[in-house]
Amino acid sequence: MGVIAQLIREFSRLPGVGSKTAQRFVYYLLKRPREEAFNLAAAIRDVAEKIGPCEVCGNFTESAQCEICSNPNRDGAAICVVEEAYEVGAIERAGGYRGLYHVLGGRLSPLDGVGPDEINVLPLLERIRSSAGAVKEVVVATNSNVEGEATAVYLEGVIRPLGPKVTRLARGLPVGSELEYVDGSTILEALAGRREM
Amino acid sequence: MGVIAQLIREFSRLPGVGSKTAQRFVYYLLKRPREEAFNLAAAIRDVAEKIGPCEVCGNFTESAQCEICSNPNRDGAAICVVEEAYEVGAIERAGGYRGLYHVLGGRLSPLDGVGPDEINVLPLLERIRSSAGAVKEVVVATNSNVEGEATAVYLEGVIRPLGPKVTRLARGLPVGSELEYVDGSTILEALAGRREM
Repeated sequence: MGVIAQLIREFSRLPGVGSKTAQRFVYYLLKRPREEAFNLAAAIRDVAEKIGPCEVCGNFTESAQCEICSNPNRDGAAICVVEEAYEVGAIERAGGYRGLYHVLGGRLSPLDGVGPDEINVLPLLERIRSSAGAVKEVVVATNSNVEGEATAVYLEGVIRPLGPKVTRLARGLPVGSELEYVDGSTILEALAGRREM
Repeated sequence: MGVIAQLIREFSRLPGVGSKTAQRFVYYLLKRPREEAFNLAAAIRDVAEKIGPCEVCGNFTESAQCEICSNPNRDGAAICVVEEAYEVGAIERAGGYRGLYHVLGGRLSPLDGVGPDEINVLPLLERIRSSAGAVKEVVVATNSNVEGEATAVYLEGVIRPLGPKVTRLARGLPVGSELEYVDGSTILEALAGRREM
């Protein structure tokens, strides 16, 4: 196989990239100064070589512990549990949360053979246990779909016996949404969670 | 800048890739075995190091001359002119053309400052001239849009004086199309180019 065909095959592995898009990437790189391709290759190698899971929370990091876990100003009394590492960034960008995180690296999905042992749950329980009561609250921030909900229910069952309060993110109307365009389940959740003004 | 942010920036340069998609690529690679990232990086370096323009036609190749130019079974009497190298593949996959190619590496686009000197035209004229009459036909296969048409008209003007017949791809109904959904300009072209059955 020629080097162009080889690169098309490698690019095609990326999510959402088919062979046409992969071909477009290759010809784009060929038309640009060679440095651009070398920079891309070097950046990929850098990430593959230097990034690993944080030994505490499982988030991706260049050090043994991620920036959040090693920041003494973060509130160690709260742990927010997310499915994937990139969701930490979404919550951080929103601002307003000062606690720590725990990255599951997936969600329970029995049909795909993903049980509790396949996601990063045991280290979370160990983390709570070894904190000797310092962890007061676990905020379950799994996604609002069937698998995310199932994961949340499972986590609640195994965490509550260890002591911390277990909460989950509120369901309701997205900010800026118009009632007319919001689906019925969301409106029901928003009604059930209504608050006095 | 961290290595993850750096790779997101590099991926974002690819056509059609925004920062969200770039981030998805990065986290995908981080979740896969490291070899996959190393293979991608190596494939990119390989292409950047080994691929260059064919000295005859301008197509991308690993050797001095591309596989088509160096194939003695191809018909040297015809040269098909395309805008971009990947268009050679489209014509080759269609089968049925046995001549050679010439890759312009662009199209005339005065508004973008692309004139005849910015595309691979002079080597084409030199190639025809030095063939001493062996090139009998130049098939202009530029795209069927304003810039492609302008490029075709320009090429016809400079090639015809050198001797070869200059032809261009037929306009008409795409195979499998339904008249109801074909635009008016295409129907007009199809009418103008109608053939006796």
